[in-house]
Amino acid sequence: MNANAVPPAIELIPGNTLITKTPEEGRALAVKIARLIVKSTQTNPAVREKLRAVYEQDAGMIIALTQTVAIEFATIAAANNYWK
Amino acid sequence: MNANAVPPAIELIPGNTLITKTPEEGRALAVKIARLIVKSTQTNPAVREKLRAVYEQDAGMIIALTQTVAIEFATIAAANNYWK
Amino acid sequence: MNANAVPPAIELIPGNTLITKTPEEGRALAVKIARLIVKSTQTNPAVREKLRAVYEQDAGMIIALTQTVAIEFATIAAANNYWK
Amino acid sequence: MNANAVPPAIELIPGNTLITKTPEEGRALAVKIARLIVKSTQTNPAVREKLRAVYEQDAGMIIALTQTVAIEFATIAAANNYWK
Amino acid sequence: MNANAVPPAIELIPGNTLITKTPEEGRALAVKIARLIVKSTQTNPAVREKLRAVYEQDAGMIIALTQTVAIEFATIAAANNYWK
Amino acid sequence: MNANAVPPAIELIPGNTLITKTPEEGRALAVKIARLIVKSTQTNPAVREKLRAVYEQDAGMIIALTQTVAIEFATIAAANNYWK
Repeated sequence: MNANAVPPAIELIPGNTLITKTPEEGRALAVKIARLIVKSTQTNPAVREKLRAVYEQDAGMIIALTQTVAIEFATIAAANNYWK
Repeated sequence: MNANAVPPAIELIPGNTLITKTPEEGRALAVKIARLIVKSTQTNPAVREKLRAVYEQDAGMIIALTQTVAIEFATIAAANNYWK
Repeated sequence: MNANAVPPAIELIPGNTLITKTPEEGRALAVKIARLIVKSTQTNPAVREKLRAVYEQDAGMIIALTQTVAIEFATIAAANNYWK
Repeated sequence: MNANAVPPAIELIPGNTLITKTPEEGRALAVKIARLIVKSTQTNPAVREKLRAVYEQDAGMIIALTQTVAIEFATIAAANNYWK
Repeated sequence: MNANAVPPAIELIPGNTLITKTPEEGRALAVKIARLIVKSTQTNPAVREKLRAVYEQDAGMIIALTQTVAIEFATIAAANNYWK
Repeated sequence: MNANAVPPAIELIPGNTLITKTPEEGRALAVKIARLIVKSTQTNPAVREKLRAVYEQDAGMIIALTQTVAIEFATIAAANNYWK
């Protein structure tokens, strides 16, 4: 058991489970855990606000974000056996 | 069960299932769910229209988008056991 | 069954199957389905021609394209049980 | 057994296991092992401090970092059978 | 069986199999098939020579190439059941 | 058996196996095989030295490198059944 991975101050997996009732909720979780990495990387809310203003106007950055969500969703979908 | 993943206002997985009848429909779903992440990230339709005008003229951004679709499709294809 | 994923005007998976006879044909399919995402994103043939002129002279974009093909091929190879 | 892979001076997998008690700890481990690659690539703490000041103000870099964490987490989640 | 995936003029999977004797040969195949996508995208040898001169002096592009090889290798390694 | 994949002059998988004793050694192998792709792409040691001086001062490039390592590690971890 890995005892070195002390959870940080910011909660990274809300609910502490990858299991969701539906694909829709799984997708929402994928978006959420991606955003929490942003939050734990840039902990200053004012700076995050500025960064958000940048990337939500930048097509390239939004596309990069869709890649992140796609990768997170792959993990969550597998965890839920694709809700089959 | 993850109760924290409250579905957002924008529907992220239309039909709320990854199961499709054919690869063609699975591919269309991959494109659709990628676009819905763009939509939920940039909720202003006028800004989205501007961003679309940018990326559809930008080879690098379109290629980045093909990466996103490829990753989403991998998940959907696995969910459907590759339609075998 | 996801009924929301109506196939678009442009065919995205030619032949509507991921199953191919050989790795070579699977690889060709990976390239093809990646290109069809470009086509369905930028539907104007004249603009696509211009974009192609850009990326085929740009090492960075070609490398990004090889990433896309690699991801698509992973899915197709798994679908075919690696042609074993 | 691969005897060539001599562990470097910097510990890369703290605790030397991918097994964690919870998804939260698995996520923290994903962040940690990604950061240790940065550390082992740029071993000078002063330079790392400067680089951190750059990327934590750069939306594109933070998004790229979320991709790394997503990939690492996929591995850790699979190793833990998704904590099911 | 997908009959639409007609193999192109350039051979994309030399030997038409993903099975190799060793990890070393599997790795070499990963590099090779990535390069063949470059070749089939930019069919002019003189232009390819120029592009190569660019990317082999560009750290960012070489790193992007290592991502491609890593993805291709994942597929080949799985196809060979990791040479176990 | 793929006989076309002749191993190049530079050894790509040191030890010619993906099996390692521990996650730590597996991680070190992931870093090593990524670097060997850089080496086989840019075979001139002096140029590699220059490139290294560039990317180890560039946060974006280091983050891209962490993506490569994450992908390689996913393969090595799977090959070792996650050292379970």
